[in-house]
Amino acid sequence: MIIVMKPKAKQESIERVKSIIEENGLLTHISAGHEVTIIGVIGDKTKLKEQNLAIYDEVDKIVDVTESYKLANKKFHPEPTIVYVGNVAIGGDTTVVMSGPCAVENRQQLLATAYAIKKAGAHILRGGVYKPRTSPYSFQGLEEKGLSYMKEAKEATGLPVVCEVTSLEAIESAVKYVDMLQIGARNMQNFYLLKEAGKTGLPVLLKRGLSATIDEWLNAAEYIISAGNPNVVLCERGIRTFETATRNTLDISSVPVIKTKSHLPIIVDPSHATGVRDYVKSLSQAAVAAGADGLMIETHPDPSIALSDGPQSLSFDQFEDLMGALRPLVALLGKKM
Amino acid sequence: MIIVMKPKAKQESIERVKSIIEENGLLTHISAGHEVTIIGVIGDKTKLKEQNLAIYDEVDKIVDVTESYKLANKKFHPEPTIVYVGNVAIGGDTTVVMSGPCAVENRQQLLATAYAIKKAGAHILRGGVYKPRTSPYSFQGLEEKGLSYMKEAKEATGLPVVCEVTSLEAIESAVKYVDMLQIGARNMQNFYLLKEAGKTGLPVLLKRGLSATIDEWLNAAEYIISAGNPNVVLCERGIRTFETATRNTLDISSVPVIKTKSHLPIIVDPSHATGVRDYVKSLSQAAVAAGADGLMIETHPDPSIALSDGPQSLSFDQFEDLMGALRPLVALLGKKM
Amino acid sequence: MIIVMKPKAKQESIERVKSIIEENGLLTHISAGHEVTIIGVIGDKTKLKEQNLAIYDEVDKIVDVTESYKLANKKFHPEPTIVYVGNVAIGGDTTVVMSGPCAVENRQQLLATAYAIKKAGAHILRGGVYKPRTSPYSFQGLEEKGLSYMKEAKEATGLPVVCEVTSLEAIESAVKYVDMLQIGARNMQNFYLLKEAGKTGLPVLLKRGLSATIDEWLNAAEYIISAGNPNVVLCERGIRTFETATRNTLDISSVPVIKTKSHLPIIVDPSHATGVRDYVKSLSQAAVAAGADGLMIETHPDPSIALSDGPQSLSFDQFEDLMGALRPLVALLGKKM
Amino acid sequence: MIIVMKPKAKQESIERVKSIIEENGLLTHISAGHEVTIIGVIGDKTKLKEQNLAIYDEVDKIVDVTESYKLANKKFHPEPTIVYVGNVAIGGDTTVVMSGPCAVENRQQLLATAYAIKKAGAHILRGGVYKPRTSPYSFQGLEEKGLSYMKEAKEATGLPVVCEVTSLEAIESAVKYVDMLQIGARNMQNFYLLKEAGKTGLPVLLKRGLSATIDEWLNAAEYIISAGNPNVVLCERGIRTFETATRNTLDISSVPVIKTKSHLPIIVDPSHATGVRDYVKSLSQAAVAAGADGLMIETHPDPSIALSDGPQSLSFDQFEDLMGALRPLVALLGKKM
Repeated sequence: MIIVMKPKAKQESIERVKSIIEENGLLTHISAGHEVTIIGVIGDKTKLKEQNLAIYDEVDKIVDVTESYKLANKKFHPEPTIVYVGNVAIGGDTTVVMSGPCAVENRQQLLATAYAIKKAGAHILRGGVYKPRTSPYSFQGLEEKGLSYMKEAKEATGLPVVCEVTSLEAIESAVKYVDMLQIGARNMQNFYLLKEAGKTGLPVLLKRGLSATIDEWLNAAEYIISAGNPNVVLCERGIRTFETATRNTLDISSVPVIKTKSHLPIIVDPSHATGVRDYVKSLSQAAVAAGADGLMIETHPDPSIALSDGPQSLSFDQFEDLMGALRPLVALLGKKM
Repeated sequence: MIIVMKPKAKQESIERVKSIIEENGLLTHISAGHEVTIIGVIGDKTKLKEQNLAIYDEVDKIVDVTESYKLANKKFHPEPTIVYVGNVAIGGDTTVVMSGPCAVENRQQLLATAYAIKKAGAHILRGGVYKPRTSPYSFQGLEEKGLSYMKEAKEATGLPVVCEVTSLEAIESAVKYVDMLQIGARNMQNFYLLKEAGKTGLPVLLKRGLSATIDEWLNAAEYIISAGNPNVVLCERGIRTFETATRNTLDISSVPVIKTKSHLPIIVDPSHATGVRDYVKSLSQAAVAAGADGLMIETHPDPSIALSDGPQSLSFDQFEDLMGALRPLVALLGKKM
Repeated sequence: MIIVMKPKAKQESIERVKSIIEENGLLTHISAGHEVTIIGVIGDKTKLKEQNLAIYDEVDKIVDVTESYKLANKKFHPEPTIVYVGNVAIGGDTTVVMSGPCAVENRQQLLATAYAIKKAGAHILRGGVYKPRTSPYSFQGLEEKGLSYMKEAKEATGLPVVCEVTSLEAIESAVKYVDMLQIGARNMQNFYLLKEAGKTGLPVLLKRGLSATIDEWLNAAEYIISAGNPNVVLCERGIRTFETATRNTLDISSVPVIKTKSHLPIIVDPSHATGVRDYVKSLSQAAVAAGADGLMIETHPDPSIALSDGPQSLSFDQFEDLMGALRPLVALLGKKM
Repeated sequence: MIIVMKPKAKQESIERVKSIIEENGLLTHISAGHEVTIIGVIGDKTKLKEQNLAIYDEVDKIVDVTESYKLANKKFHPEPTIVYVGNVAIGGDTTVVMSGPCAVENRQQLLATAYAIKKAGAHILRGGVYKPRTSPYSFQGLEEKGLSYMKEAKEATGLPVVCEVTSLEAIESAVKYVDMLQIGARNMQNFYLLKEAGKTGLPVLLKRGLSATIDEWLNAAEYIISAGNPNVVLCERGIRTFETATRNTLDISSVPVIKTKSHLPIIVDPSHATGVRDYVKSLSQAAVAAGADGLMIETHPDPSIALSDGPQSLSFDQFEDLMGALRPLVALLGKKM
């Protein structure tokens, strides 16, 4: 941590800050520049957490030089983490594809989708049963009934299943049926939910919040890991910007950035990122080429009657076509699919 | 709802969309322009909620012409809503000031603050006891112990109290102690929490999400109201933008926009919006001059040792100075304080 | 400037950076922390401008601790600058109102507007004659003919006039007719234009770019001042965010931020910031209450037939009503109008 | 164009809008819905450009259903445009790579770079000689001297060359030396410059503005094309968002969006988009996989002493490694390189 003093700060102001730091058991290095004096803090800065150095006289700003996340940080855990969801390994040499409907609507729709994506080569079945919807008048999900369909689809196809959870009750139900919990974008900083998901020990798919920085995203992962659960997979699903041609802006750079800063696997969801089916193939290829560990793709037997996010869902034929296009690309990059 | 077809859409594509709408019990108006044909939908569009018209051939886009929120909408409820928190009325002719520490740290800190803000003329005591913090290693709040201090401060000073809640458990505890529940920015789209807060019947202070549009914010209010609780106060606390000189960007325009679109009261929180104490006075004056129904201002006996957000908290002297500056401004605008 | 090394950086990497700095005639202070080593640079950092320290082995990041603008910086010029436009002083104890049409359309429209705003108490006449429009098929302005109308309106009413310039040719014409040049938002980083405007010596109204940080805005001012022209007035006109309820988001916090960082006057343009006439009064009051030195307000004899930005223009009656509302507010704040 | 009236608008308000439209020689279709009445406008809406329908009584909003750009619009020009820069065709079956230094520093640096990128397989040499820099105290470019080096490098290697122009003077000089003009991000809405670049007839590389929507970007292209010059290549170089881990956010979705909306070629600049050399390879692969027609990559003989943007420049070895990685990917996608 570095404290930058204002230009021509008085010696007594500098001394005051210095003595507060030292009283808390840390060391200081004073660097007196032409215009400004800088105070470097040496030692465990958490000892200063009850001090707000920013408010002292003539303090200009405080610069953190180390990240606040530790367990999710590649600096302290250089080897990539591999997360197992059932028998599927995410983060290794396989590009993992999760697919299924945005919302589980009924048994038949889900089973048909599960068989179709399995046939096309997907690895994990996704399906929403607790739906966070902007308006209270939109379809809110089948809840536990939907979870039972997910389990049935899993037993029928052998595909592990992942479902979003939005409350402790949802977690308590979901753990009985699913192989992986999803924390959605709107709940990425629902720290209560993160801790509860962490306690289950199930793998967690953590979607990036609509306006979360990568740093905040990794801190959210830290909540789950520090609750004792290292099985976190990150999912980039688009951030909110001024551009309206797509529903969100897919931050493709997050893939190499996460690979640099963290050991956790990262997958990409081009369906939610764009909201437009026609762009999914192009962006799936981009994500894989950028180094993502997998994809999450929405599919539906008949997107024209989907209760949620139909315009961004692929039909089974389109999904098969996408998988066919990805296969040689994945092979070229030295991975399996 | 309007369906815009692609240029030179075939007649059969147009007919297909038309017939789907009509099969669902709605009427259509076809408007064949030079370049494009437009299909107007007449009737209750919720009848179409199981249809994704956007995916049909040659449909270019769908334009909603009515808002999805109804109960929060001024069009259907033109009179301003007045929300009572204890004996304090928000949304009428009084500019209501809520103040207190970001985080309740101990009994003494809270009581000292409660007395000080009461003396300076504040109306409601705020204090965080369940703290949503970016890092799991930051101070997380005193929880129920903090709630009991809030109640004690209320009894000592007569000020009603408001606390943020972050889970169903927190709500269940808080209803025993507080006069108003706060839903924080990070939980604005935690729809589960909104519904649970709605069920309590207690007034709810709904902070705007970091990247929530005004439309989404009013839809979040709709969740609370549609759970049977019309006592919602909106709080603008800054949105996330590219600018880094302030912690967030105070969207002052949200005040007149909300006044145009909704009947709900709106207050402004310049402390969180800027993160910088020195800007709080200037922006408090701006918020009142823009027509806000109130303010939320952070105060602390000694901001230098605040466990949360010290740099944006006012000392008691600074708060008193602020209240003194606001009083003639409020009077000039024909209101009380 | 501070160089933060990566955790456990090798001693030779640290030494290499240190020696490069010292070879360039600067001093270093090494601060070896628990996790990271920090190298403080002491002296004139422009000596390092031919070095990219960021690319050396094990350099993590470089933190600037001083602003790159000097002439616009309050640290080195603590007294507020007063800019004279004709006989009008901006930045002193008068809240200055500039008003007029977005685009000058004809002689009659401009003269009528000039008389009306003069009568209502405005200080400066604005009018666009070189219009930057998103589409090449929109009205592009009357150019020099429009400048001659501006001069005529000035002579008729005694109001100084300001016009936007968009090229060197426009500057060469404008200097013959106007009292102040305006650099528009889209040209805020047209550095060529900034320098040319600086060379004229005329006062310059510098609008903030759509996505310019405050730091970039002050650097743009630095281009003008370093060309020998200290007469710069800043104008906040809304920034681009995700919110669509208003055309832009008025960054009201920029007023106190600029007052803290710079000695230059700042005015606010609520017409362009919101794009909605109904919000102009509320936000004008907010801007004045926040401490702005003035306002820029669009007016038009008949907004329904304005060739540019009609929906945000005030009629003469609305403008008079606004001025009436501002007068006691300005007086309350101890200023004149 | 569609006019949406407010709920329960009076018949006379509707009639007034209808009659204004019809008086201007257009037809209307009235669609009277449950809550709102909608007026469709049929015919050439430019006839209405002197009317601001938005300001009439009880008009709620106006929705455009057609884009304002025509010449850049795929709807009216379905075949892809191929732009020739010297003997290099952009937009066809070759993935075109432009490379070179951010800033031309001296003859030797440029020639060394030109030979190196030629050897590695690049098609076009880039180099900045008029540099738009945030601060007036940063290196501003070699101007005409730099242009002459570019021409020499072209003659030595046979590579066509592209340079950014920032003023009419710069254009007048550049046309004597270069094969393609570049309009930089900061000048994307410098409409004067767009028109002047259009008049030259030289191919133009149009970079996307920092906060330009795709719609605004295509309108900027429309300025160039409507000046008589159809040879426009678009360049995505990252947009400004809240994320700070990268300098900008590469909007990879712009590739398929542009391919859907326009016939113009699009290339991607991952160097400026991220500002970090380590991310360039990953994002170059992503851009090619997404369907981009080419790439712009910064290279420098010794990035550690680059006068501009060193941290994002590749060394020659790194560039060769990148080209080697791209070659099989391009081939897999059925293109040449």
